[in-house]
Amino acid sequence: MSATKKSSSANTSKAMGEFDLIEHFFKEGAAKQGQDESVSLGIGDDCALLNISRNNHLAISTDMLVEGRHFLVGADPHWLGRKCLAVNLSDLAAMGAKPVGFTLAIAMPSVNAQWLAEFSKGLFEIAQEFNCRLIGGDTTAGPLTISITIFGEVPPSKALRRNQAQVGDDIWVSHQVGDARLALGAMRHEWSLTESEMKSVSQRMHNPSPRVELGQALLDVAHSAIDVSDGLLGDLTHILSQSNVCAEVAIDEVPASDVLKSKSIELRRLCTLMGGDDYELCFTAPAENAEQIEKISIQLDIRLTRIGKITSSKTTRDTSGNLAGVLRLLDQEGHELPPELSSQYLKSFDHFK
Amino acid sequence: MSATKKSSSANTSKAMGEFDLIEHFFKEGAAKQGQDESVSLGIGDDCALLNISRNNHLAISTDMLVEGRHFLVGADPHWLGRKCLAVNLSDLAAMGAKPVGFTLAIAMPSVNAQWLAEFSKGLFEIAQEFNCRLIGGDTTAGPLTISITIFGEVPPSKALRRNQAQVGDDIWVSHQVGDARLALGAMRHEWSLTESEMKSVSQRMHNPSPRVELGQALLDVAHSAIDVSDGLLGDLTHILSQSNVCAEVAIDEVPASDVLKSKSIELRRLCTLMGGDDYELCFTAPAENAEQIEKISIQLDIRLTRIGKITSSKTTRDTSGNLAGVLRLLDQEGHELPPELSSQYLKSFDHFK
Repeated sequence: MSATKKSSSANTSKAMGEFDLIEHFFKEGAAKQGQDESVSLGIGDDCALLNISRNNHLAISTDMLVEGRHFLVGADPHWLGRKCLAVNLSDLAAMGAKPVGFTLAIAMPSVNAQWLAEFSKGLFEIAQEFNCRLIGGDTTAGPLTISITIFGEVPPSKALRRNQAQVGDDIWVSHQVGDARLALGAMRHEWSLTESEMKSVSQRMHNPSPRVELGQALLDVAHSAIDVSDGLLGDLTHILSQSNVCAEVAIDEVPASDVLKSKSIELRRLCTLMGGDDYELCFTAPAENAEQIEKISIQLDIRLTRIGKITSSKTTRDTSGNLAGVLRLLDQEGHELPPELSSQYLKSFDHFK
Repeated sequence: MSATKKSSSANTSKAMGEFDLIEHFFKEGAAKQGQDESVSLGIGDDCALLNISRNNHLAISTDMLVEGRHFLVGADPHWLGRKCLAVNLSDLAAMGAKPVGFTLAIAMPSVNAQWLAEFSKGLFEIAQEFNCRLIGGDTTAGPLTISITIFGEVPPSKALRRNQAQVGDDIWVSHQVGDARLALGAMRHEWSLTESEMKSVSQRMHNPSPRVELGQALLDVAHSAIDVSDGLLGDLTHILSQSNVCAEVAIDEVPASDVLKSKSIELRRLCTLMGGDDYELCFTAPAENAEQIEKISIQLDIRLTRIGKITSSKTTRDTSGNLAGVLRLLDQEGHELPPELSSQYLKSFDHFK
């Protein structure tokens, strides 16, 4: 659960989006529960932390994937099995947590043994790759829906939070973003790709790479982190809002694949900035840690690119939801984008729209 | 996840029920993951246990509730909010665990503020009653589906498992069972109830009472426990299968409400033995602990009734799924029920049927 905007009252809720919803009904309620030593971090970040161990905190995250919304109807069950755990592993990565285990709750319209065999094969494949064990679950009949809750360990006070970005931090992104959106658009006939282009980029949609090792390597290096699931800029603004800071991003520095780089600048920007389904890490770190970050990049063989800076703190909280004042988007010449273009890229992803 | 029967091969899976499914695809895969010190109990009980604390184990359970299957279409959202956490608290109760927190993943067809307000009110009400905090979640669009993962603490090696019933143990059940099924049947016009009868019994369906305190009180007293969610006999057979023991139950000793006791013996037996949705605890304990159990009953003001005994160990594992040899059902005179009647009561609940 994440929440960025405040809603003033229940009466405004007719026009509420996902974030408001959670904020209004769940975060407010959770806040009313008061403090508890055993819950060191609740709603509002990639994972919740339970302080039940002397040596480690337990990082917990939950996701629900619905057929036709988070994955296509008739999606390949093997890839789906991999992906539904990958997206949760990505949440652990964004906290710098080491995977421990997960629970799986799944509703299926009917019992299809072949589907289940392939799904579970994909699921256990990735579970083994990341040493993350299935420790419980529930199976029932219903429209195809998959809910995973994942658990990881992280040293106390070291977890990468969303609310710790500092003025002067560089903003980084791992590997490259936008290919999943490029593939999805081709499937939806929004644009076309050659067969070889499609083959190259669709893997990124079907089989994302959660940056679990990277997250752990960044524990003493980065100030804040988030995984890019709903679009780079939308996710970055969660860090900005929760850290109460402003930033600028050189949007054409955002790393993209060769396929995506061969497309028009408009398409490239759309896919890299607003794409979603990337599961890369976006993180902020002090400028003096750049050399260390380059070393981590080489060590893990993951490209890490500086795309911007945290420029200033926000003295007053902007409750209007207008992000234009919080995040400045710069073009290749370092000029700020016109507001109408900028605001187009700053629309956040909402699963109810 | 729970699993009682072994399936011989993937080829038999066409006729698989819920338990087989889980066994085949998930438990087998989980077993292949090998041992891990941090997972002290995985799939197969009410909760999984993570050994990440020196002082306590973390008990984790997950459930998925689907509209039209686990609750009626158009169900009152306030009651639903209470119930969806209650059924998970009941899983903690069955392990003797103290609630810590839970995550909520929910898919909804559209954003209905009034529904959400009432749902979250019910949810937080019961969360507060049991000191169990919402610590994370996910919200998305989709057919109404609610998945909760709950966490509780339990002293190491003390959790009430399903596989520790011993020969000579008494079998107990808390409060009374069958009212939820009696109410459901009336709603479905399987039988009729007066308005006052319906009012009295339907509360048990809408607003079950998870036996969290009782579970904790039984930690050093009972050998095994399960919560009655899918029908008393079906759930008891999970204990018998996993403990590899046989039992007898005096079926007319099973405690029922005054309303249910006023009905025919057939209806009473159907509701108490196969009802489901009761969320009482069924547990086994050494005969010499009976006095202590009576004291707990008085202390917590919860009726506890002895309904049978663990009679013998099973020397060979019955892989046919035939439970008649495992659980003997006795009538008021202590006579065993005829096999055709007995087998009728031993049909377990399956969410895919």
